[in-house]
Amino acid sequence: MINEKLPFIFYGGDYNPDQWPEEVLEEDIRLFKKANINVVTLPVFSWAKLQPSEDIYDFQWLDRIMDKLSENGLYVCLATSTAAQPAWMSKKYPEMLPVDFDGRKRKHGGRVNFCPTSEIYKDMSTKLTRKLAERYKDHPGLLLWHIGNEYGNYCYCDHCEEEFRVWLKKRYGTIENLNKAWNMSFWGHTVYDFDEIVVPSGISEMWRDNGRDRSNFQGISLDYHRFMSEVIFNCYLEEYKIIKEITPDLHVTTNLMGTFKPLDYFKWAEKMDVISWDNYPQLIDPMYVTALRHDLMRGLKDGKPFMLMEQTPSQQNWQPYNGLKRPGVMRLQSYQAVAHGADTVMFFQLRRSIGACEKYHGAVIEHVGHENTRVFRECTKLGEELSILKDKIIDSRIESKVAIVFDWENWWAVELSSGPTIELNYLKQIEKYYKAFHDKNIAIDFIKSEADFSKYDVVIAPLLYMVKKGVADNIENFVENGGTFITTFFSGIVNESDLVTLGGYPGELRKVLGIWVEEIDALFPHMKNSIKVVNKAINLRDEYSCGMLCDILHLEGAEALALYGSDFYKDMPVLTRNKFGKGKAYYIASDPEELFIKDFIAHVCNEKNISSKFENIEGVEITERVKGEYKYTFILNHNEYNVEIKLDKNVYSDLLTGEKKIGTVTINSKDLLILEGSI
Amino acid sequence: MINEKLPFIFYGGDYNPDQWPEEVLEEDIRLFKKANINVVTLPVFSWAKLQPSEDIYDFQWLDRIMDKLSENGLYVCLATSTAAQPAWMSKKYPEMLPVDFDGRKRKHGGRVNFCPTSEIYKDMSTKLTRKLAERYKDHPGLLLWHIGNEYGNYCYCDHCEEEFRVWLKKRYGTIENLNKAWNMSFWGHTVYDFDEIVVPSGISEMWRDNGRDRSNFQGISLDYHRFMSEVIFNCYLEEYKIIKEITPDLHVTTNLMGTFKPLDYFKWAEKMDVISWDNYPQLIDPMYVTALRHDLMRGLKDGKPFMLMEQTPSQQNWQPYNGLKRPGVMRLQSYQAVAHGADTVMFFQLRRSIGACEKYHGAVIEHVGHENTRVFRECTKLGEELSILKDKIIDSRIESKVAIVFDWENWWAVELSSGPTIELNYLKQIEKYYKAFHDKNIAIDFIKSEADFSKYDVVIAPLLYMVKKGVADNIENFVENGGTFITTFFSGIVNESDLVTLGGYPGELRKVLGIWVEEIDALFPHMKNSIKVVNKAINLRDEYSCGMLCDILHLEGAEALALYGSDFYKDMPVLTRNKFGKGKAYYIASDPEELFIKDFIAHVCNEKNISSKFENIEGVEITERVKGEYKYTFILNHNEYNVEIKLDKNVYSDLLTGEKKIGTVTINSKDLLILEGSI
Amino acid sequence: MINEKLPFIFYGGDYNPDQWPEEVLEEDIRLFKKANINVVTLPVFSWAKLQPSEDIYDFQWLDRIMDKLSENGLYVCLATSTAAQPAWMSKKYPEMLPVDFDGRKRKHGGRVNFCPTSEIYKDMSTKLTRKLAERYKDHPGLLLWHIGNEYGNYCYCDHCEEEFRVWLKKRYGTIENLNKAWNMSFWGHTVYDFDEIVVPSGISEMWRDNGRDRSNFQGISLDYHRFMSEVIFNCYLEEYKIIKEITPDLHVTTNLMGTFKPLDYFKWAEKMDVISWDNYPQLIDPMYVTALRHDLMRGLKDGKPFMLMEQTPSQQNWQPYNGLKRPGVMRLQSYQAVAHGADTVMFFQLRRSIGACEKYHGAVIEHVGHENTRVFRECTKLGEELSILKDKIIDSRIESKVAIVFDWENWWAVELSSGPTIELNYLKQIEKYYKAFHDKNIAIDFIKSEADFSKYDVVIAPLLYMVKKGVADNIENFVENGGTFITTFFSGIVNESDLVTLGGYPGELRKVLGIWVEEIDALFPHMKNSIKVVNKAINLRDEYSCGMLCDILHLEGAEALALYGSDFYKDMPVLTRNKFGKGKAYYIASDPEELFIKDFIAHVCNEKNISSKFENIEGVEITERVKGEYKYTFILNHNEYNVEIKLDKNVYSDLLTGEKKIGTVTINSKDLLILEGSI
Repeated sequence: MINEKLPFIFYGGDYNPDQWPEEVLEEDIRLFKKANINVVTLPVFSWAKLQPSEDIYDFQWLDRIMDKLSENGLYVCLATSTAAQPAWMSKKYPEMLPVDFDGRKRKHGGRVNFCPTSEIYKDMSTKLTRKLAERYKDHPGLLLWHIGNEYGNYCYCDHCEEEFRVWLKKRYGTIENLNKAWNMSFWGHTVYDFDEIVVPSGISEMWRDNGRDRSNFQGISLDYHRFMSEVIFNCYLEEYKIIKEITPDLHVTTNLMGTFKPLDYFKWAEKMDVISWDNYPQLIDPMYVTALRHDLMRGLKDGKPFMLMEQTPSQQNWQPYNGLKRPGVMRLQSYQAVAHGADTVMFFQLRRSIGACEKYHGAVIEHVGHENTRVFRECTKLGEELSILKDKIIDSRIESKVAIVFDWENWWAVELSSGPTIELNYLKQIEKYYKAFHDKNIAIDFIKSEADFSKYDVVIAPLLYMVKKGVADNIENFVENGGTFITTFFSGIVNESDLVTLGGYPGELRKVLGIWVEEIDALFPHMKNSIKVVNKAINLRDEYSCGMLCDILHLEGAEALALYGSDFYKDMPVLTRNKFGKGKAYYIASDPEELFIKDFIAHVCNEKNISSKFENIEGVEITERVKGEYKYTFILNHNEYNVEIKLDKNVYSDLLTGEKKIGTVTINSKDLLILEGSI
Repeated sequence: MINEKLPFIFYGGDYNPDQWPEEVLEEDIRLFKKANINVVTLPVFSWAKLQPSEDIYDFQWLDRIMDKLSENGLYVCLATSTAAQPAWMSKKYPEMLPVDFDGRKRKHGGRVNFCPTSEIYKDMSTKLTRKLAERYKDHPGLLLWHIGNEYGNYCYCDHCEEEFRVWLKKRYGTIENLNKAWNMSFWGHTVYDFDEIVVPSGISEMWRDNGRDRSNFQGISLDYHRFMSEVIFNCYLEEYKIIKEITPDLHVTTNLMGTFKPLDYFKWAEKMDVISWDNYPQLIDPMYVTALRHDLMRGLKDGKPFMLMEQTPSQQNWQPYNGLKRPGVMRLQSYQAVAHGADTVMFFQLRRSIGACEKYHGAVIEHVGHENTRVFRECTKLGEELSILKDKIIDSRIESKVAIVFDWENWWAVELSSGPTIELNYLKQIEKYYKAFHDKNIAIDFIKSEADFSKYDVVIAPLLYMVKKGVADNIENFVENGGTFITTFFSGIVNESDLVTLGGYPGELRKVLGIWVEEIDALFPHMKNSIKVVNKAINLRDEYSCGMLCDILHLEGAEALALYGSDFYKDMPVLTRNKFGKGKAYYIASDPEELFIKDFIAHVCNEKNISSKFENIEGVEITERVKGEYKYTFILNHNEYNVEIKLDKNVYSDLLTGEKKIGTVTINSKDLLILEGSI
Repeated sequence: MINEKLPFIFYGGDYNPDQWPEEVLEEDIRLFKKANINVVTLPVFSWAKLQPSEDIYDFQWLDRIMDKLSENGLYVCLATSTAAQPAWMSKKYPEMLPVDFDGRKRKHGGRVNFCPTSEIYKDMSTKLTRKLAERYKDHPGLLLWHIGNEYGNYCYCDHCEEEFRVWLKKRYGTIENLNKAWNMSFWGHTVYDFDEIVVPSGISEMWRDNGRDRSNFQGISLDYHRFMSEVIFNCYLEEYKIIKEITPDLHVTTNLMGTFKPLDYFKWAEKMDVISWDNYPQLIDPMYVTALRHDLMRGLKDGKPFMLMEQTPSQQNWQPYNGLKRPGVMRLQSYQAVAHGADTVMFFQLRRSIGACEKYHGAVIEHVGHENTRVFRECTKLGEELSILKDKIIDSRIESKVAIVFDWENWWAVELSSGPTIELNYLKQIEKYYKAFHDKNIAIDFIKSEADFSKYDVVIAPLLYMVKKGVADNIENFVENGGTFITTFFSGIVNESDLVTLGGYPGELRKVLGIWVEEIDALFPHMKNSIKVVNKAINLRDEYSCGMLCDILHLEGAEALALYGSDFYKDMPVLTRNKFGKGKAYYIASDPEELFIKDFIAHVCNEKNISSKFENIEGVEITERVKGEYKYTFILNHNEYNVEIKLDKNVYSDLLTGEKKIGTVTINSKDLLILEGSI
């Protein structure tokens, strides 16, 4: 439980009363109460107001807001306001401003526009945090802490360069180790002193190619990603430590952004008391991509419930096309978050700004200013429902027998590498395999490659290009003990430094997979090969299409379940299975069409007796959360039409209405059921 | 009349004798006379020749040219040559060189490559202008003045930053006012001193997105557009003042560029004695887009005749595909300018350059150097015709009952805003409505939003996003007194600072329109809705397609003429009409297909008894200019085939042949008629 | 012969033992010998290892490698290692780092990342070269020299600016000459001192447009290309002179890159003892584009055999899609090089790197490290075959009656010019004409425009936009004496300074072509015209399609063979022939479809009795090399299927098997024959 003061699903969101005349606050509180809102997040962007100059702090306006909210029963997720330093500060300390990928020194503007290694930034931000923590540590309304906002500020300035050298010295000890790790003899890049190293950017080793950062030297670029992820994290951590020193019992978080590539969120999660994230699907995104992100966020802290920190009540403003959430969709997406492990439903924003770039971002209170809007009505209805749930769902967990390995360093490495094809896209591969399970209503955990696999029956690691120290052993142990492991083409290729594991692909995974990949063919988009299934014992169709990459491989103990249908490697294996100890390891040597993955995953689930006890209906998502003896089943109908679902034999109670549910139930379009049952 | 010395349509163009050996001048004069040319514009780019170093000016070469031209009956549109400073000046005074959007200090090169706030530029340019004015003020050949050339030089240098702060201080008085106008509490951007403000550019608040400048803070970016438009104008104005001091009776102009976004030409027009502009349609542009630009240029000075300052006799060089104007097209487009209010027909250029980037830009005298070319023959024929017209057309005016509001600040604001859709394009909306009238041969004026509407029957303000002070009153008065006002989705949203008018869209227009827009839906390009017409009294089809944005609106006095055909706002109003005083205000809540606009405008014209007395024939453009008791009717056949036109009952005189015209006339492909009639 | 020590086809490639532990060398030598490799190129990128600091050089490691290789019968193509300076050097001498087109100072990284006018670079690189040359001049394994690597480093720094001014002073003598050559009176760009000139780049006169550099002033940009090509060449030349001083008898080369636009390879060839180049076709490139590049490289030194310095044994890594060379293709492409005049078959690389950006570039020895791979087996088989050939083919020549003019300065000028269409693409036009001959198995030489044409029957100069001094005479002499000359639209337009030849297009070619081009129409991509053949005596179809540009021309002695089929220039000439002296000059006034070129070239070949004595079969390439009394015929089957070829009456000997060949032979897919016959 995030805070026992409020043992319910948090409901509220970002609120910026400092953008409004003071009298608006009273009206807002009236509206918040009407909407059953219980938490507001503030002040996310008020540094300039809190600290008008270096020596002057002004908290009185915030005192009044905090008191007023608290008096009215509203709790505060207190933000440290350090995501955007004041203009006077950028002016006084220009070293605080970052240098971008193209080597351009930035001027003041935007947000999260500071150099993450800036000492003065850290000094200033921690001073403010300390003052806030000391001032409000005993405030009755204080519920939890929100540090910064949507971090992600890579910088390429001279100070970062110096700090990078220090970091490298610590990582590698000697320059010889570094030269080796980065293979610096290539192109004569050998360095004799750490001082010779320059940051990899668009004016040194790197360039941008269709929005993707590419590098001549993957080693240095990979380390720069690690370094940046870490120094940005340190900005968070410095504030975290102060807060925990002053209010050790309160939860501290910062709002993450789902599948956000620049930051290794698994590392960040170690010092986050609770994960929170901002969910902004586009109108046309399929629901499984949102589900995936919820599951990934839940995985960051081993399944612990997370916070949905931001979502829009109606529309966004920064997408190309900012369609309205259709009636019921905001509610449905809110429950989708809860269904995947969220214990909060929070919005950006409670009142819509009058000016600047987010004025067309939806809010609970729209520009019209009153409650007579569709959006406010939907928010109110949801608030009422959530209050019915009381503490029933919070702290419950999702149980899964299937895990997908997700690895930020691997992601970076795959997409920094030059060759064999620009089509390599880590996230797309993850999504493909996730979808197959999700379509069958099978719960999936996301785990890191070093995690304990033993609690799972099936572990999938698509595109496990980089095999870190210990990971191959981890996989072998898992399979030896009966687990089913699945991986794909372009796996087992390099170590943590992006150095190829010599002696034959897939390197350290060769033993557990029982294969040797001799060559990797890259197809042009118009070229296709096929997967001809030869093992008729497994329940697959005769043939599927595949493409992008085609490994040419030899069996070394594994058996071929399917063969290539054409090209000069026709009749060579494309799908293999290796029995290893008590388990099995599968290798998918090319990028298959979706239907193959669907069928193959069905086969694997069958083999491992993994199934949902509910039937699968297109567009209907079913998850379960468990707490004590109770099981909460979420059935969400994302379709444009009503559906009928046959329940299993149990008797359920509809959590929102209290009605008993048995047999076949109808769920309207965009509607849902939360069924309480016993384990 | 621009100058009584030459009471005819000016015919000629840009001429650069300083690019050629002196002996070429004589031959050129022979050819000019042969082609009936009477005006040449020079010296547009001769600063380096006129001022070889800081203390030396050389006008003797120009004296000789001026004299020679004058002796041969050729008049001069005298240019101040300040559009491209000499290389020695850029070298000596590097502060004169601008900084671009990406923060890069430019080197010498190109043209209009100076910082518009540079003091040294202004000092140098006005010195030259004064010398030119004093030297040639009494020259018999001097006809009018041409300052600079195609201004548009936004700059982002430190000096502009300082000047911007001064400008802001003047505009806002206090920093509090500025903070409020820009809503600087958003993202904690509050500034405490004007010195904290930095120019909005690609290294601070802005970025480029498919060629469009986007901003985090529309307020500052909008003001920077205003500031840049003004300081660039000041470069012009400084020269203007000197010239008017020395030759108060001569007209002064600078060549504008039609729908050129960076400069607010309505503001510029206030200090231009006559509007002149450069017309460069592509081979495949439909003729109405050219007509629109002529009408807009005419509107800048309330309908006063303007100058066609540049057009190519044959082809351009800087388009992707520089097709030749087909035989007759140059002539037809020349008359199109006159038909829309031009009193001059001038070319860029008279003699084709031998080198550098415009050497493949067409000219009256081609590289071959003699008169035996199609282009020269067509120019000669046109010159002969124009001389037949004598002073008949000049100073005549176009009378219109319909006006379209065009507003540069609104344009900037619409396209700087983030959301609700990237498809928002001000110019496209203007073009759509213009076309509907133009297709019916109904004259259209372009006016600013603060203009006097009372002389019009119908005023259309598509996408009137920004409603400036007084504009809502202006519209209300107009409608109250019987006018028909038409506006569209995304109107009435913000004030001049891009702050939303709270209390419900369309803000200040809500009263006159009698509606409240609750939500604005943005559709993806593949999504469509429809306009179902429910009021059968108006002459529209049953259903039309619409898309892009869909306002969800409630009637507050207005009636619904059409409803949405689908989506969750099916059957809510999409076309409304509000009776207000003696007039009507229409609101089009979504972006309709062209056919709807055609039919709807037909309905409005019908209602207001606005029609052309000629039948509408596709590809045939008909306009009228009126002077005293005479009416000049232009009938232009843009088609690839001949057409027959039925005239009204009047007897006309063909101005080019003197023939009487009555009944049905045939106009050949690419040919035209100018009919003189009496009012 | 490159070196009499090794009178065979060189077989080997780039080798980087310094990237590996010393013990790998022994294993590599074993594998090299197994694969019949006889030459290795090294050390291409070892400057940092050879010179760890300014005063310390370390050659001992290289001594050991050289000795070991030599002891094992392997020769060395010794590289000077100057393509990538050490990091310590960039740090110590930052002036060595270049400034890019956008004005950004680069940091250390990548390769060929030095300013070509840097004195310190030249000092350092020549010192290293001298040391290498002195140390190894008598080494038994030393076979030839390889300077730098893939030069192409344009720079825009202040030092280049200064040097450019010096270069210009030398070229033009006076500032008046320069002003005239560049037509600087245009846009008032007149300069009064060389110091006023700035480098043309993205922050002065130029911009990038879809990857192509465009310029306001073609004159300065063209000269900057000349200057850059020359100063980069000088980096090569400085090393060349030292090597020739020390080892005058050894061949010196640097690896060129085929149709690489930035460098004028004809100029470079003058100081290259043998041409070498790197051939990297994509999997989907048609074979004729590779053939063209081989022929161009052979042409650089007048037909002298060249070196295939690099090709991949299997796949590349830097293409978007790096498909594997299918079985047999590496062998086939190796022989294709030999068939077009190569005397070497060399790879990049012999052992695949473990890390950095080329780790996924194919190699003879793959990451698996052993010889049991398809790639190694194919390399071994090829090595065996080449050793069978002994010295039979080397030093033989290709004899051609047809030449295509290729001119780098013309290429630059065509694509720098603004107008008449962005579709102008020099290389594409060259390729179109080349293909027509190549498809007929007719040998083609590439020559520069100043070359001696007298040995050819047909000379084609597509898009000969720039006519340098003497070239028109050259062409006239050629035609007068019976030659057939063919050129196209947009030819004869400018002189070497990109100044238009006044008096009528095609300028200096007008006399020999017997035409006057009055206008040049540019069509949009969707527009087409047609070529209606009116002279039925020539063997063409009735009509062909054409587009892009359409010259409107008048006959001045030439006859019209075909007329335009539409538009306002319908029935005007589009294909003309001028009898001039004993020869004929053809002009193709528009860009025709491929079929026209095929038929037209067939007609010309017929007329001149040029033909292959073998039948033409699609996908089969046939060339001949001649030495003394022997003729070597290469028949390469690029098809996916087997073909049958009818030989002429002669008796041939299959060079690889020794078998006699007569009558009809079958060649398998991707296979080839080398037939020895007598002249």
